[in-house]
Amino acid sequence: MGYETVLEQLHTIDREYRYLEKAAAVLQWDEETYLPAQGVAERAEQRALLQGVAHDRLTGAETGRLLEQLGSTPQNLRGDEKLPRIEGDFLKVMRRNYDRAVRLPADFVAGAARAEGLSQAAWVEARRHNDFAAFLPHLITMIDFARRRVEYWGFGEGGSAGSVYDGLLDIYEPGMTAQDIRTVFEPLRDRLVSLLKKIARGPEPDVSFLKGPYDSDEQARFNHELMDLLGFDLSRGRLDISAHPFTTSLGSDDIRITTRYFKDNLLSSIFSVIHESGHAFYEMGFPPTIRGTCLAEGASMSVHESQSRFWENVIGRGRPFWEGVFPMLQTHFPEYLGRIDTDSFYRAVNQVKPSLIRVDADEVSYSLHIILRFELEQRLFSGELKAEDLPSAWRSLMQEFLGLEPENDAQGVLQDVHWSMGSFGYFPSYALGNLYGLQLWQKIREDLGDVETALARKNFKALHTWLRERVYCWGCRLDPAELLMNITGKKLSVTPFLEYIEAKYTKLYGLTTSGVSS
Amino acid sequence: MGYETVLEQLHTIDREYRYLEKAAAVLQWDEETYLPAQGVAERAEQRALLQGVAHDRLTGAETGRLLEQLGSTPQNLRGDEKLPRIEGDFLKVMRRNYDRAVRLPADFVAGAARAEGLSQAAWVEARRHNDFAAFLPHLITMIDFARRRVEYWGFGEGGSAGSVYDGLLDIYEPGMTAQDIRTVFEPLRDRLVSLLKKIARGPEPDVSFLKGPYDSDEQARFNHELMDLLGFDLSRGRLDISAHPFTTSLGSDDIRITTRYFKDNLLSSIFSVIHESGHAFYEMGFPPTIRGTCLAEGASMSVHESQSRFWENVIGRGRPFWEGVFPMLQTHFPEYLGRIDTDSFYRAVNQVKPSLIRVDADEVSYSLHIILRFELEQRLFSGELKAEDLPSAWRSLMQEFLGLEPENDAQGVLQDVHWSMGSFGYFPSYALGNLYGLQLWQKIREDLGDVETALARKNFKALHTWLRERVYCWGCRLDPAELLMNITGKKLSVTPFLEYIEAKYTKLYGLTTSGVSS
Repeated sequence: MGYETVLEQLHTIDREYRYLEKAAAVLQWDEETYLPAQGVAERAEQRALLQGVAHDRLTGAETGRLLEQLGSTPQNLRGDEKLPRIEGDFLKVMRRNYDRAVRLPADFVAGAARAEGLSQAAWVEARRHNDFAAFLPHLITMIDFARRRVEYWGFGEGGSAGSVYDGLLDIYEPGMTAQDIRTVFEPLRDRLVSLLKKIARGPEPDVSFLKGPYDSDEQARFNHELMDLLGFDLSRGRLDISAHPFTTSLGSDDIRITTRYFKDNLLSSIFSVIHESGHAFYEMGFPPTIRGTCLAEGASMSVHESQSRFWENVIGRGRPFWEGVFPMLQTHFPEYLGRIDTDSFYRAVNQVKPSLIRVDADEVSYSLHIILRFELEQRLFSGELKAEDLPSAWRSLMQEFLGLEPENDAQGVLQDVHWSMGSFGYFPSYALGNLYGLQLWQKIREDLGDVETALARKNFKALHTWLRERVYCWGCRLDPAELLMNITGKKLSVTPFLEYIEAKYTKLYGLTTSGVSS
Repeated sequence: MGYETVLEQLHTIDREYRYLEKAAAVLQWDEETYLPAQGVAERAEQRALLQGVAHDRLTGAETGRLLEQLGSTPQNLRGDEKLPRIEGDFLKVMRRNYDRAVRLPADFVAGAARAEGLSQAAWVEARRHNDFAAFLPHLITMIDFARRRVEYWGFGEGGSAGSVYDGLLDIYEPGMTAQDIRTVFEPLRDRLVSLLKKIARGPEPDVSFLKGPYDSDEQARFNHELMDLLGFDLSRGRLDISAHPFTTSLGSDDIRITTRYFKDNLLSSIFSVIHESGHAFYEMGFPPTIRGTCLAEGASMSVHESQSRFWENVIGRGRPFWEGVFPMLQTHFPEYLGRIDTDSFYRAVNQVKPSLIRVDADEVSYSLHIILRFELEQRLFSGELKAEDLPSAWRSLMQEFLGLEPENDAQGVLQDVHWSMGSFGYFPSYALGNLYGLQLWQKIREDLGDVETALARKNFKALHTWLRERVYCWGCRLDPAELLMNITGKKLSVTPFLEYIEAKYTKLYGLTTSGVSS
C-alpha cells in the first residue's frame, strides 16, 4: 500500500472522529441555548454515548497501525521525513491526539461527558439560586475527573511528566508549566496592582448613561449589525443567548457565538460579542488546505484568547474604533446616547473600576481576576485547598488583589462556567492571550503602518488579511512558541502588554509617574 | 444466562440506538431552525455518519442472537409465551425494526441520510425561488432511494410483499395497502366534493379582520400562552420557527414543535401550533414503563395524525374552544379583534374556501389535498408519471378536485417538505388520521358526556386524562387496528367523520340537503 493510501485512511478516521465530535458539540450548544429544563438528564446520556463513540473511532487499533506505517511514533511524531510538510504536521497532531485519547478508557470518557452535562446544568441552577452547596458535589466530581484524566497521561504522583496541575495546563498550552506561568504572572500582578492604585486617585469618568435600561432586542439588533461590520459572515455562523458567552465550531462553515443581555449594562453584551467574534474569526479563517482536519484548531488556548482579547480590547476599546462605530450605536439608542460625544463614550468604555465579575472587568484589573483563579487552581490540585473552602479562599484573594468582597457566591466562585465543565487550567490562557495579543499588535503596526485611520473608517480589511495570512493560516500546525517566533521573531514577553496598558491609561486618566498630572 | 439478563442486553442496544437516533434528530432540528446557510453540506455529512453509526448499533449480530435466544423470530415476533406481555410487545417491535434495518446496507442508510440533508436544503431554496427545476434532481434521487429501500424489504417487482407503493405505505401504516386506502378515499372524495359544491352556494363569512398585519412577535407570545393553556409543558418542550411546521422528539422530556409566521394570516401559525401540540401531547404522554424504549412511538403515522388533527379541528375549530380562548386572543390584538364577536370569529375560523396550500386548507377541502397527493404518489411509483411531469399533473388534479390552478410551483408541487425528505406514502396518514380522530371523538363523548362545557371553560383536563389512559399509554404496543378495536370496539370507518363534517358545515352555512336554507 502506497503512503498516499495509508494517509487517506488516516484522514478518513480523523474526519469521521471530527464529525462525531461536532455532532456532540451541536448537542452541547443546544444544551446551553435552547434545551428545555427537563431534557437535561437524558441529554447528558446522549452526549456521553456520542463522545464515547467518537473516542472509539479515534482510538481504534487501526489508527495506531496507520501512524506507525507512516513512521510516526511517540518519539518521532511527524513520521517519515520524505512526507510533505503539511502531512508531517498532520501526523504530529494525530499522534498527539491519539496517544492522549488511547490512554483514556472509553468508560472514563463517557463518564466524564455525562458528569459534565449534569455538572453544567447544576451550575446554572446553583448560580441562579446563589447556592454553592448545591454545586459542590458536582465540583468535587469535576476535580476528580480532571485529576484522573492527567494521571492517565503520566502526570501527578508516580508519573514522570509533572504535577497534576502542570498536566491540566498542558491541555491548553502545550509545554507550559505552572512555574513558567508564575514567572510571567508575578511582574504582571505587581505592575497592574501598582497601576490600579494610581488610577484610583484619578478622576472617574461619567458612566451613568450606560445604565439604560437598554432594551435587549435592540441590543441584539445592534450586535448583529456590529458583527456584520466586523466581518463576521452570518451565512457561516450565528449569535444566540446563553448563561455564559462562548464560541463553538459545529462545522467548518458553522461557527456560533453566544452572549447574554443585561438591561442596565449596555457594554456587557457588546464586548462579549466582540470577544467571541475574535474567537470566531480564527475558526472561520482556517484555509481550505486544513479545513475539516485536526489541523483546523487554534495553536493553543492562549493563542485563541489572544485573538478574542485582541479584538475586544486593543481594537474594541480603542479610540479609533468608537470614532467609527459610536454613531451606529447612537442610532439604536438615541434616548440615552444622542447627546453623548465620542470622547465621553470612549472614556466610559475604558473606565477602570475593580469589580467582582471577570467578564465585565476592565483591561487593567482583568488579569488580576485570572491570577486569582490561577492561584486557587494551584492550591486545589496541590491538595492545599479543599473544594468546600473555595468560597472563602475566593473572598480572601479578591480582597487582597482588588480590595473587594463578593456579597454572594453567584458574584464570586460561581460566576464562571469553566470549573463546572472540568476545564481547570484554562484560565491562565486569558492573561497569556493578552501578552500574545500585544506582541502581535506591535508587529501589525510595524507591518501595516497607520492602522488607526482604517479602523476609524470602519475598515477592518487589512487587519483581517494580516491575521489570516500570519496567524489563522497555520491552524495548529505550529506550536504557540513556534508561531510567535515565526511571526515576530521573538519569545513570549510581558513587556509589550505592560507598555501598552501603562501608556493607554496614563493618558486616559491624566496620570504622571508620581500620580495624577496637573 | 437468565432471560432477564438477555432482555437487559437487548434493552441496552435499544436505548443506545435511540440515543444515537435522537442525536441525529437534534442535528436535523437544528438544520431546519438555526443552521447557518453555508453549514448545510457538512451537516448532511455529520448526520449521515451518525445515522450510519445508529444503524450499526441496531443491526449488530448480537441483536439477532439475543432476539432468537428469547424466541423471537420473523414468524413469531413476540417470542417466548412465558414472557411478561410488555416484553412480548417490546420483542415484537424490536424484531420488526431489526428485520427492516438489517436488510438495509449501512452505505445505503448513510447515503440516504446524506441525500436527504442536501435535498431538504435544495427544497427550501427551490421553494423560495419558485424553481422546480433546481429541486428536480434531488426529487429524482429521493424517489430512487424510496424505491430501493422497500425493494430491500421484498416489495416491488420480483418481491413477494406487494407493490413498491404498498411498501412505502406500510412504513407509516403497517398492513395497509393502496387498495385499502382507495376503498376509503373514494367515498370520502365524492361526499366532500359534493359538500363543497353546496357550501359554495352559501354565504361567505367575513374574514377581512384576519389579514392584519399581525405582528409576528405578538403572534409568538399568544402561541406560547395558548400552548401553556392547552397543557403543553414548556419545561419538556419548545416552540421554534421553520419553513414547514413539524414536531420532533429529541428525548423523553424534550419534545419540540415549530411553526411559521405570516403577518397577513393570523390563523396559519395558531392552527399549526395546535396541530403540532397534538403530536407533542402524544409523545409527552407515553408512560414511564415504555419511556426511552422502542415502544415509546405512536401506533402509526395515521394514529399520530389523528391526535394532531383532532386537536386542530375537532377541538381547535370548535365553537366551545373559541368561547374560552377568543378573549385571550383579543387582548393580544385589540386593534383588529376588539370589536369582533366570538361567533364571527368562529365562522371566520371555519371558512370553507378551496385554496392552494394544504396546511392552510379548511376542514372540508383538506382531505382532497391528500387524495391529490395519494393519486400522484401512486402514479409516480407505478411508473405512469415521471418526476419532471409532476408540476403539470399537480395542476390538472388541483383543477379537477378544487377548481383551482396554482400560479407557480411554490404554491403547488413545492409546497410540502415531505417529498424532499423522501417521505413518500406519508400523506394518506393525514386523511386517515381524520377518520381515526372522529371515531375517538365519538367514544370520548360517550365516555365523558358534556365535554363542550369544560372546553368553553378552558379546561382540557378530562380530555387529556382520557387520551392518556386510552391512547398514549399504549405507545406502539398495539397496531393501529388493534388500538382502535381496543378503544372503540370497532373497525376503521369513514362514517363518523362524514357525519361530523356534514352536520357541522350544514349548520354553519345554513344548508339544507337541497342547498341553502331559507
